[in-house]
Amino acid sequence: MKKKLGSQSIQFEQPPVITSTAAIVGPMEGDGLLNGFFDCVMEDNIHNYASWEKCESYMIEWAIRKAVEKDNSTLENVDYILAGDLLNQLMATHFAMRSLGRPFLGLYGACSTLAESLLLGSTLIDGGFAEKVAVAVSSHHDAAERQYRFPTEMGVQRPPGAQWTVTGSGSAVVTAQGEGPRVTTATIGRVVDLGIKDPNLMGPAMAPAAVDTLWKHLNDTGRTPDYYDMIYTGDLGKVGKQLVVTMMQEKGIDVSANYEDCGCMIYREDQDTHSGASGCASSGIVFASYLYSLLRQGDLKKILLIGTGSLHSPTSYQQKESIPCIAHAVSIEQ
Amino acid sequence: MKKKLGSQSIQFEQPPVITSTAAIVGPMEGDGLLNGFFDCVMEDNIHNYASWEKCESYMIEWAIRKAVEKDNSTLENVDYILAGDLLNQLMATHFAMRSLGRPFLGLYGACSTLAESLLLGSTLIDGGFAEKVAVAVSSHHDAAERQYRFPTEMGVQRPPGAQWTVTGSGSAVVTAQGEGPRVTTATIGRVVDLGIKDPNLMGPAMAPAAVDTLWKHLNDTGRTPDYYDMIYTGDLGKVGKQLVVTMMQEKGIDVSANYEDCGCMIYREDQDTHSGASGCASSGIVFASYLYSLLRQGDLKKILLIGTGSLHSPTSYQQKESIPCIAHAVSIEQ
Repeated sequence: MKKKLGSQSIQFEQPPVITSTAAIVGPMEGDGLLNGFFDCVMEDNIHNYASWEKCESYMIEWAIRKAVEKDNSTLENVDYILAGDLLNQLMATHFAMRSLGRPFLGLYGACSTLAESLLLGSTLIDGGFAEKVAVAVSSHHDAAERQYRFPTEMGVQRPPGAQWTVTGSGSAVVTAQGEGPRVTTATIGRVVDLGIKDPNLMGPAMAPAAVDTLWKHLNDTGRTPDYYDMIYTGDLGKVGKQLVVTMMQEKGIDVSANYEDCGCMIYREDQDTHSGASGCASSGIVFASYLYSLLRQGDLKKILLIGTGSLHSPTSYQQKESIPCIAHAVSIEQ
Repeated sequence: MKKKLGSQSIQFEQPPVITSTAAIVGPMEGDGLLNGFFDCVMEDNIHNYASWEKCESYMIEWAIRKAVEKDNSTLENVDYILAGDLLNQLMATHFAMRSLGRPFLGLYGACSTLAESLLLGSTLIDGGFAEKVAVAVSSHHDAAERQYRFPTEMGVQRPPGAQWTVTGSGSAVVTAQGEGPRVTTATIGRVVDLGIKDPNLMGPAMAPAAVDTLWKHLNDTGRTPDYYDMIYTGDLGKVGKQLVVTMMQEKGIDVSANYEDCGCMIYREDQDTHSGASGCASSGIVFASYLYSLLRQGDLKKILLIGTGSLHSPTSYQQKESIPCIAHAVSIEQ
């Protein structure tokens, strides 16, 4: 078990390479802070489909095909696809898989799914089971709102701590050999639930899980935060991000200098998303566009990407349950 | 990539051992054909919980703890838990993970999740990333009916082809070394959808996916069906099972002599479940009780377990979509 590191982490022996990525987004994301970094900005949130869900399915299929194309590969070279989304029964992903026709493993880690798919895909490659895998995640603002909260057509007012589910999909091709940043270690998270019950406060609910995984990661690897150029969480938003800084400070660790949350990197202040972005595609599109390009250019050399997932369901909320959360981390180094 | 076999299969180098299993079921399953094989039969379908969903969460937690206990281990020895269920956002699994507190990877393969978790857990072990993992799945008849079809309290008449979602949970501990049957190969399935739209006909919808994976497995491994003592699918029921036999016959392969479906092995004819059992727990409880005991006793030496999953969602059904399906196979040999 030479590849196990400490209590919850993995050290890859021959770190798999992320050889390409692709990101597709809705118009609001395309018009935000990362304007110009995406492979495709849709003209609207439905792209002529009959439902938000079908549009989301289109996005994840597009992102996978684009990442494979940018890898100069064909789908036939992809041994397995690992993917997931936020919709019940992974509706967006499963309907996309019909036409992709590749061996597929469905994952559900809510908004932590990108990190989960990167780490599991990397174990398949480093374990000798695959040469090349594609990973992908998606979310859609309107599809998520009507599933988790209220249909957007109702125009329900959102509280100040609420986050805005990203419309988009991010995909990556991970390969045994090639050019690009490498997945060097991973930390698999535990479910943490400190009792928050309001699905409009997902950032604060997820922050303790992010802290738990970051703390374990640093302990397991013997690293301090300054080992990384930057540490990114997936979608904690402004409120959750501040909580991570505070909770790490209470553990005697200062992450304020090199820590950011993907949920704070997508929308401009005047886009009025309140606490920031959320959804599988929050870390999905930020990693597959901006972060990956910085890594390829050498402007970032070592990052820790902590996918954060709020695992509640509308049913659990109606049954007055609190929100279990999880976070998985992958370190990606050039 | 020495462990890749053909187009969709994996050959484990040091086949991981299934060192223990545990199964808990509801009263109807306990009173069925496998009476006497389960670790626990609940006195009713709710076990004093406030909801079916919370009872399902209890079952999956119980099954994992019991399998670990029967392995003479403690939870601390379990590197990772891989699990999933049928409820939206894996509600049963996630709420159980709060108290188990182990690193966790959430999977969604609908009723194929047991096979998916066994194969991914085995890659983590054979890849050198873990010494011991626990895998588990659950389903609950009443929780599934109200999510997928109608609340059972409505007493809606079920058509003859309908199947009965199993109330129960099955768990297994997979270890790098030890006593027990081994996971020797696995075949990862593709999503197959031949256009069936009726969620009361899941067996026929899933049969083509089972045939696709079985066909690939035989091709990838160079085996014929008689390599195995028995081939089991997860939950096709009577109608789906007959379809598999017919479709394989059309490919020139006779599986009628040593093929059975777990969905036909749980309920007695007079329990009036129509086409048989379904749900994650169909293959879950049959494998974790009856099949595992036959393997341990040497009465079965080589089996192929094909988990079959119907990946539709209530939303996709309402949007008039057909049912995408998947099947994953693991060969387990004593």
